Amino acid sequence: MTRSIPKKVAVIGASGYSGEELLRLLGQHPGIEVACITSRQYAGKPLGEIQPQFRGHPVLGAIKFSDSDVEGIVASGAEFVFLALPHGLAAEFAGPLLRNGLRVLDLSADFRLHDPAVFEEFYHGKHPAPELLGAAVYGMPEIHRSEITRARLVACPGCYPTTITLPLVPLLKRGLLDPKTIIANSLSGVSGAGRKADVGFLFVECNESARAYGVPVHRHLSEIEQELSLAAGETVRINFAPHLIPLNRGMITTIHVNFSDSADIEAVTSAFEADYGSESFVRLLGASAIPDAKHVFRTNFIDIGWRFDTRTGRLILLSAIDNLTKGAAGQAVQCFNLLAGFPETTGLL
Amino acid sequence: MTRSIPKKVAVIGASGYSGEELLRLLGQHPGIEVACITSRQYAGKPLGEIQPQFRGHPVLGAIKFSDSDVEGIVASGAEFVFLALPHGLAAEFAGPLLRNGLRVLDLSADFRLHDPAVFEEFYHGKHPAPELLGAAVYGMPEIHRSEITRARLVACPGCYPTTITLPLVPLLKRGLLDPKTIIANSLSGVSGAGRKADVGFLFVECNESARAYGVPVHRHLSEIEQELSLAAGETVRINFAPHLIPLNRGMITTIHVNFSDSADIEAVTSAFEADYGSESFVRLLGASAIPDAKHVFRTNFIDIGWRFDTRTGRLILLSAIDNLTKGAAGQAVQCFNLLAGFPETTGLL
Amino acid sequence: MTRSIPKKVAVIGASGYSGEELLRLLGQHPGIEVACITSRQYAGKPLGEIQPQFRGHPVLGAIKFSDSDVEGIVASGAEFVFLALPHGLAAEFAGPLLRNGLRVLDLSADFRLHDPAVFEEFYHGKHPAPELLGAAVYGMPEIHRSEITRARLVACPGCYPTTITLPLVPLLKRGLLDPKTIIANSLSGVSGAGRKADVGFLFVECNESARAYGVPVHRHLSEIEQELSLAAGETVRINFAPHLIPLNRGMITTIHVNFSDSADIEAVTSAFEADYGSESFVRLLGASAIPDAKHVFRTNFIDIGWRFDTRTGRLILLSAIDNLTKGAAGQAVQCFNLLAGFPETTGLL
Amino acid sequence: MTRSIPKKVAVIGASGYSGEELLRLLGQHPGIEVACITSRQYAGKPLGEIQPQFRGHPVLGAIKFSDSDVEGIVASGAEFVFLALPHGLAAEFAGPLLRNGLRVLDLSADFRLHDPAVFEEFYHGKHPAPELLGAAVYGMPEIHRSEITRARLVACPGCYPTTITLPLVPLLKRGLLDPKTIIANSLSGVSGAGRKADVGFLFVECNESARAYGVPVHRHLSEIEQELSLAAGETVRINFAPHLIPLNRGMITTIHVNFSDSADIEAVTSAFEADYGSESFVRLLGASAIPDAKHVFRTNFIDIGWRFDTRTGRLILLSAIDNLTKGAAGQAVQCFNLLAGFPETTGLL
Repeated sequence: MTRSIPKKVAVIGASGYSGEELLRLLGQHPGIEVACITSRQYAGKPLGEIQPQFRGHPVLGAIKFSDSDVEGIVASGAEFVFLALPHGLAAEFAGPLLRNGLRVLDLSADFRLHDPAVFEEFYHGKHPAPELLGAAVYGMPEIHRSEITRARLVACPGCYPTTITLPLVPLLKRGLLDPKTIIANSLSGVSGAGRKADVGFLFVECNESARAYGVPVHRHLSEIEQELSLAAGETVRINFAPHLIPLNRGMITTIHVNFSDSADIEAVTSAFEADYGSESFVRLLGASAIPDAKHVFRTNFIDIGWRFDTRTGRLILLSAIDNLTKGAAGQAVQCFNLLAGFPETTGLL
Repeated sequence: MTRSIPKKVAVIGASGYSGEELLRLLGQHPGIEVACITSRQYAGKPLGEIQPQFRGHPVLGAIKFSDSDVEGIVASGAEFVFLALPHGLAAEFAGPLLRNGLRVLDLSADFRLHDPAVFEEFYHGKHPAPELLGAAVYGMPEIHRSEITRARLVACPGCYPTTITLPLVPLLKRGLLDPKTIIANSLSGVSGAGRKADVGFLFVECNESARAYGVPVHRHLSEIEQELSLAAGETVRINFAPHLIPLNRGMITTIHVNFSDSADIEAVTSAFEADYGSESFVRLLGASAIPDAKHVFRTNFIDIGWRFDTRTGRLILLSAIDNLTKGAAGQAVQCFNLLAGFPETTGLL
Repeated sequence: MTRSIPKKVAVIGASGYSGEELLRLLGQHPGIEVACITSRQYAGKPLGEIQPQFRGHPVLGAIKFSDSDVEGIVASGAEFVFLALPHGLAAEFAGPLLRNGLRVLDLSADFRLHDPAVFEEFYHGKHPAPELLGAAVYGMPEIHRSEITRARLVACPGCYPTTITLPLVPLLKRGLLDPKTIIANSLSGVSGAGRKADVGFLFVECNESARAYGVPVHRHLSEIEQELSLAAGETVRINFAPHLIPLNRGMITTIHVNFSDSADIEAVTSAFEADYGSESFVRLLGASAIPDAKHVFRTNFIDIGWRFDTRTGRLILLSAIDNLTKGAAGQAVQCFNLLAGFPETTGLL
Repeated sequence: MTRSIPKKVAVIGASGYSGEELLRLLGQHPGIEVACITSRQYAGKPLGEIQPQFRGHPVLGAIKFSDSDVEGIVASGAEFVFLALPHGLAAEFAGPLLRNGLRVLDLSADFRLHDPAVFEEFYHGKHPAPELLGAAVYGMPEIHRSEITRARLVACPGCYPTTITLPLVPLLKRGLLDPKTIIANSLSGVSGAGRKADVGFLFVECNESARAYGVPVHRHLSEIEQELSLAAGETVRINFAPHLIPLNRGMITTIHVNFSDSADIEAVTSAFEADYGSESFVRLLGASAIPDAKHVFRTNFIDIGWRFDTRTGRLILLSAIDNLTKGAAGQAVQCFNLLAGFPETTGLL
């Protein structure tokens, strides 16, 4: 590691599960200094008191939460700001921070959609800052690496879109699939719901429970279909059924889809190897193994497997990520590395 | 409850998870006497020592395991025998027991398929007693009630088939669905794997894990497709992806399927109400609620929900059962009630 | 079962975990009619909508929540009222209900202490109805059976006191233990915290977590020491450390204690056999097996084991209950059976 | 980090849970090279195939298991060998490896006891290599740092001893406690039982279960009492009750103990601050917070809290570790850093 001056970063809304994972990753990143972490609720308190796993951490141990105001963030000297805020709140911060010259990595859904009309349809309200949508880049490095490198505002994807989009894009862009036949079923750990007091996410309500939700129209469909349509070169509508299962962390997705006329399983394998063979965070399992949430636990990997069902003629795509890492904070750090000029894996492997 | 002479029953292979659930249900059945329980491993030991939850049970407390031999079972005076044995072993018992005039409820897969060729294809070996296949009735009371009532050998369905077949049959038999487009994703608790020493099912291997398995061809596909084909009046091939999740008990299934030309969501609702409106163990949720494994925990209910996705034109069917109750032992007791002339819900509600 | 007129009962505060378990048990009780269930939050809604496991229940399915007011309860014709309310609220209901001639079984801590000064010390406020304390009987049938039978107000014990008091009382009352040396460590499932929106009891906060709490002075110490002092004939002060572990239901307790001069392990065994040998819900394991939460799951049993450590000369007592059954609702139904003249095990075995 | 030549290490028995955690930690250690990993069962297979979480790891990804023979280990050039073998097997390797000049860190119990007679008493057999016991150093750096630095054979402590010994030693060596009154209750995650096919550790057997075991005499008592006796300067016998709870990883311990005549809670605080105030891996919580398994998850920290119960006059000590890190592999790496001349926290913070 070069001994250059560390990049100063800020984390806004650091007390949720994504914020916590972001701090864990930033705490092991050799090229940065955490200049400021904010939390309205915990301003003034040391991180280690609120999130005791950070007590005694050599880098983060002594840091205190400050209030979540733009002037303070700017004054901290941060060049890069991670927004780990509830949906809707990020847009309030992004504009002022960008105008002050900071570069913003937003983990919320506020800037993931290019079309404000789609935002309205799926989020049931006007977009709070539509003028920024044009500048925002969708933060999936394996798909949009070069735009991310130059971006001032990165809209980091959600966990469901990561497990669904990454397996499909190489195949859709080559015309290997019938885009009308995509059916994605996803299983999510409970941390995806955030650290909020809600009876539905109590231990007793989630343990020994398994349930679908958000069927048939979950909000994340909007960004999934945006990215799939871009890859396919046509409007893609899919079926997507998310399920909540009793894991702290982890997400797996199973996709069933028909081939287009010309495709076969070898073409699938070739497409994955061509697009992802050199990717640091994509592990291609093919038919040799099945992705499992535990194998990607606390890593930034996505595992992708694929099988062909000769009986029905359908392709089955299987993927697994840690919803808080590759599905949130890890992917954001991966984008940050691109923005800040670090090797993409810095602090992540 | 009438004070008639209790029916004598035997449970063969009582020390597994299905056997244990069977004993729990039989222990609360007011019309039976457990004449004999067998276990090769635990012969001579009292049930309460091996399965301590039964210690002090007013009916089962004192009962001892005997060895698993046909003569002993016959000598016990049992009229009805539940076989809760590993697949392949049940066929050894069924023939001799039937020849001795006992009626047999088999919880294994040995007699679920009518066609020995299909058995060979999916179970990779000759069927051990093909001469009995003709007599066996598939033990799903909501579909085959009248045959079960008269049967001497009932092949009780597995848990996956129960969650998939029951939602589809009323729709397929009315021609409401395009049978080529059925895609079923199921999530199963770990008890489905049985009580056997296997590293893959250790606590540490299953907790914080979620994984598909048996993709694309799981053994239970054979009985699922047999029953769906019967309902549809044509050969049906489906995609089925089972997943293992960290629950002790419980199974949910999400099915995506296209309508046939003439169908709509009202026809779906009508079909369910017509076929299942009077069923004691089918709870029709429609679009009002989502089936959840915890709501059917330790019950013999199957919860069924359905939604129509106007965006893709697909129907989504959702179901939930307890894999050990409606998915195994409860359904077997429901069949037993039919065989023995009890009201179908006796001991189950 | 005699075909006598069923006893009418009401459940006040039926939407929490104890209320839910109470309804499950009452739903299988052959001698009662649930005349009224109340919930301020859910008044007017059917039980099955709020607690979907009760959908389709032959007895409880159709019942609706009513508002929690005394007149309505009285008007329902209920003779017996279960109060499953948060601590502090039960006292508001008990007085008016008693004055209207109803008999009350309170699951809260409001009436468990005989001395209002002790209540103030442990609950940090004046007792809301000290005039009722004299009439209240501590609802532990194995210890206070005859008083319960005649009681108008039964204060049902908490889960911790049940696992600690039942193993100790037979030994203390015979002078076998040095009462100054009692150290009790208990492990509780999360349902003990109730169904309330609290970040500390979210799935993600409790799964993969284990922690002591309420050390060194937990509120339940007050009733534990009251009962132990009664048994010992002198003031007893103990150490009690409760721990929260990731179970839905279940509680185990491990007690270390020194013998008094004259005692030995045979005297312990004799005492347990003399006092509990005929009890329906106490299973004496001695040194033959170790109590496990899973063995008492959804039962009203308490399992008790004991060992002598020859190296240190200390006795180890081990106990296990289901915190919602023997630790709350089951014990309340056991008391109800005594009040209403049913065999003590009715609806519980 | 200096760019010196990396130290070559070997891991023998790398396929168990401790071996896996060891590889995780070694994989992020900047000063080592993993020269050889062995497993009888998996010889010839790449690590990533057997433990898929290591697929794609920049350092460990390509490494293959070799057979577990001494010549191969010596030939690999390893200077330091970690033995992560079942108890009893380590002794077979230690002698030959030491004679070949390698330095050995043993994670098993084989060399933790100084007295072969104590080994025989607790492990029910002759010690396999008593001649090595004199050379072995107990690998608890906070207590035996200087001996570890010079050791050729380090016997790394178990998880229970770590949670019990570290809180007690500073107090015992100052005479603050009555050593006859120590009662330790510990709660362990299931990974402590190892990755072995055993029905008792299946998911279904451990989930929704909590149970004591090994009461009153668990094998680890022997090393606990050895270390406590050394600190106290007299023979110490304690009560120790281990419990199994449904966690993958994590251990908490609650100790109750009486003060000696002269002690008070301030003396306790002073002792901890004096002995552990500068320790990198001991976090002193005092009465400000309660140790929780989740706060030390995947870290090498031990959290220690303490409270005084004025009602009974007893001190309560609370501790938490990750059983696989500070309770096994992390502590071993901490010892390795001392042996190899690295800063003690290298690869661990």
